[in-house]
Amino acid sequence: MSDVADWWRTAIIDMEPGRISLRGVPVEDLIGNAGFAETIWLLVMGAPIDGARARLFEAALVAAVDHGPQAPSIAAARMAATCGVGLNTAIATGVGMLGDVHGGAGEQAVALYHRVDAAGPEGLARALDAWRAEHGPYLPGFGHRFHKPVDPRAPRLLGLVDAAAAEGAVAGRFAAAARAVEAQLAAERGKPVPMNIDGATAVIYAELGCPAPLARGFFCLSRSVGLLAHAWEQIGQGGRNKGPTPPGYRWTYDGD
Amino acid sequence: MSDVADWWRTAIIDMEPGRISLRGVPVEDLIGNAGFAETIWLLVMGAPIDGARARLFEAALVAAVDHGPQAPSIAAARMAATCGVGLNTAIATGVGMLGDVHGGAGEQAVALYHRVDAAGPEGLARALDAWRAEHGPYLPGFGHRFHKPVDPRAPRLLGLVDAAAAEGAVAGRFAAAARAVEAQLAAERGKPVPMNIDGATAVIYAELGCPAPLARGFFCLSRSVGLLAHAWEQIGQGGRNKGPTPPGYRWTYDGD
Amino acid sequence: MSDVADWWRTAIIDMEPGRISLRGVPVEDLIGNAGFAETIWLLVMGAPIDGARARLFEAALVAAVDHGPQAPSIAAARMAATCGVGLNTAIATGVGMLGDVHGGAGEQAVALYHRVDAAGPEGLARALDAWRAEHGPYLPGFGHRFHKPVDPRAPRLLGLVDAAAAEGAVAGRFAAAARAVEAQLAAERGKPVPMNIDGATAVIYAELGCPAPLARGFFCLSRSVGLLAHAWEQIGQGGRNKGPTPPGYRWTYDGD
Amino acid sequence: MSDVADWWRTAIIDMEPGRISLRGVPVEDLIGNAGFAETIWLLVMGAPIDGARARLFEAALVAAVDHGPQAPSIAAARMAATCGVGLNTAIATGVGMLGDVHGGAGEQAVALYHRVDAAGPEGLARALDAWRAEHGPYLPGFGHRFHKPVDPRAPRLLGLVDAAAAEGAVAGRFAAAARAVEAQLAAERGKPVPMNIDGATAVIYAELGCPAPLARGFFCLSRSVGLLAHAWEQIGQGGRNKGPTPPGYRWTYDGD
Repeated sequence: MSDVADWWRTAIIDMEPGRISLRGVPVEDLIGNAGFAETIWLLVMGAPIDGARARLFEAALVAAVDHGPQAPSIAAARMAATCGVGLNTAIATGVGMLGDVHGGAGEQAVALYHRVDAAGPEGLARALDAWRAEHGPYLPGFGHRFHKPVDPRAPRLLGLVDAAAAEGAVAGRFAAAARAVEAQLAAERGKPVPMNIDGATAVIYAELGCPAPLARGFFCLSRSVGLLAHAWEQIGQGGRNKGPTPPGYRWTYDGD
Repeated sequence: MSDVADWWRTAIIDMEPGRISLRGVPVEDLIGNAGFAETIWLLVMGAPIDGARARLFEAALVAAVDHGPQAPSIAAARMAATCGVGLNTAIATGVGMLGDVHGGAGEQAVALYHRVDAAGPEGLARALDAWRAEHGPYLPGFGHRFHKPVDPRAPRLLGLVDAAAAEGAVAGRFAAAARAVEAQLAAERGKPVPMNIDGATAVIYAELGCPAPLARGFFCLSRSVGLLAHAWEQIGQGGRNKGPTPPGYRWTYDGD
Repeated sequence: MSDVADWWRTAIIDMEPGRISLRGVPVEDLIGNAGFAETIWLLVMGAPIDGARARLFEAALVAAVDHGPQAPSIAAARMAATCGVGLNTAIATGVGMLGDVHGGAGEQAVALYHRVDAAGPEGLARALDAWRAEHGPYLPGFGHRFHKPVDPRAPRLLGLVDAAAAEGAVAGRFAAAARAVEAQLAAERGKPVPMNIDGATAVIYAELGCPAPLARGFFCLSRSVGLLAHAWEQIGQGGRNKGPTPPGYRWTYDGD
Repeated sequence: MSDVADWWRTAIIDMEPGRISLRGVPVEDLIGNAGFAETIWLLVMGAPIDGARARLFEAALVAAVDHGPQAPSIAAARMAATCGVGLNTAIATGVGMLGDVHGGAGEQAVALYHRVDAAGPEGLARALDAWRAEHGPYLPGFGHRFHKPVDPRAPRLLGLVDAAAAEGAVAGRFAAAARAVEAQLAAERGKPVPMNIDGATAVIYAELGCPAPLARGFFCLSRSVGLLAHAWEQIGQGGRNKGPTPPGYRWTYDGD
């Protein structure tokens, strides 16, 4: 039996009939005592989080819940909700679209900050050039095609990081790295290219010690909230097989 | 332009460059102030939640985060994580499987409780018979194929509901309905068929006034945590194209 | 070992190192000899198909490959393709949306035809009323919100069924049932409500002896072709995080 | 209106009420005349295919329909089918898992063959070393963890390519490239590392002029057949919330 049982190994959950333990904590001790954000951290990271660090993490989760139905994932979830599927499918439709482009900027920004932090101030310009040589001209986490001049979520999140750093809960080194990138970009372009939501939540995830891929993982949990809210609202509005534009519009045929 | 803009209507989010408002609240006021569970409720239900009611909701979200890799959704998410896809796809794989059978018991239990509550004590037996005539022999939210005699999450959650009812935060009528079902089932079978996690979280969702389908919706948010944790752990363990059983096993061919 | 191997049982495929057999046929005998449509039927239905019946099945698969980017599944697949995911995710996004409303009409029409066939001519009106009492006012497979007066695919498919019936390859009873529904609808409404693609492919699937749910299953295979074609074309067009409408449009906020 | 219509542009499909044209061909001309495989090529590639080239393409589609329930995508589709979701969701679950590792070998092999072809015989060893420096030690399309010594699909497919090359339908240069890789690998390792299904279908796709990503796209269409067949068979077998191993097994808890 052991080869089969060993095929599925986990340190997340232990179970016997009548007993469930999550990361070593009986589930009935978490229920009613631990917050949802704290439980997320505990389950995924395998260690508790509390105090100022827990509040930072919760702020990052809250900040990214929604960006409206012009985002392809939200639009797709709303369209799915009119196609005769369950709410779970509507959510899955949207989460499945949070790929390297739609959901990956936070992940990439964490990686970028680690490089910038390692390069130090004198290596900054070179580190950014190296990044762009590998990944293309845009730095993840900076600039926004809609929120100009400023993404309102970013300064608020950075302010919380600063406060946490002031009380010693986090080191603040990745906030510094992110601001160095922002300053360098502004110098290069001659105008501000401010940090956006992905850049700001990446600061938090980096400060908290999350591996870069989890920045995307946590973003998925956060944006799932918006996906559910929009799918549910769409169900209330009705509609069947909702297309992207009103039925009176058609696409442009550009074949021969 | 108005017909196009009107095709996408929402009361969830309002936006201008530099400004995001969620259910009428500036996003920067939510960040750092609202908990993640509170934000979920606000966004989905369109109204704030706080105090004992917020704690109940948070407890329901915490309770259902994971049930281990024997659950098909968790196993599938772990297998997906070894197939060369992003964490978002691993989560979406699992959420997509939270259908009527795997994720729908809570939704059905909320509907059942409403019927039982409407039928009153004298109509209970008739209400359960009517439900079974429509939906089959099993009542959603009661009994567990693994946790015998008791699902440890259920009494803990019911205790929290009782406490909230004692302070007047919820009415307690759906807790009463659920216990009436439990008693009736025990009388019919001559042995306990205790409430399970779905039955208990359904009590909370019913007490809080959630429409039944949102019991599934919120379960999806909760279980997404386990999906992420397991997918991430699997990535750490490695593996490529992980199958359901060790490679030495094969299926039984039962064709001619 | 047997309990584990027996947990996964199949009559579809048998395998040893160096040997693969699909429904009892060595894979190397299928490759280069069997058509793709024939192989689909063999694998799913477990029996070979050939001649006029195979051509009918192939026609049904060909007919439903695409209906353009106003269909929510196609739009979602194209949007997904701009989000940094693989072509497989773009396809999965669209297939996941082929639910009871977007992909279920064929499945429902097969079930309807079976009822109409069983009721006979004198029971037709009663059978339709009973269906509508259960499922609502619209009969699956008839009428089209865009193709007025006629969905060009339906008469072509019905003509192929008639030809196959004339040579005895199929019985033609479900074509008769479908036309009886069409005539009854026209009489009730005082104007034609012609059969659409779902109604016509359902005739084929019913004539071939497919269980109703496979009408949706085969539709998924067919429409996957359009999903792939559109996702691939979108990648060629470029775009990042393509929303449903041009960026200059925004949604209407209808909150307080 | 034009900015909205132009947002969705396609050369795949043109439509007016009562008229549908796919790649310039009226749909009613395809129905009953074009094979399903030919229609797939037409829709995705935008050009007709026929004769020996069409037969090669069809052979590649047939070859990859299934590899049994030890493949994670097939297992996941079968598990999904027991969770109360539609057949479309079962298929989507599996297709979503055909990522870079589970579905990407064909795509990578097409790219590899192009490099090998460009390098010529004298550049072969250097080309393979360069590939491995970028992508890791395994060459896509060669070797199989189960089918030893030979994947029975590969020589059959290569034989068809050879026959098509003999009659001038394809050039045969990518078959030569693939065999050169196979010979080089055998020389390096001192034992055969034979071409597998991905390597062989990649030869076909390369010979036919498909861009590399479409090797994965077409594989998705092919494997969707197995996903549907297995999901449907599982529904017939019954089961609710089917886990990866029999319920008597549990995972190994390896936490502290």
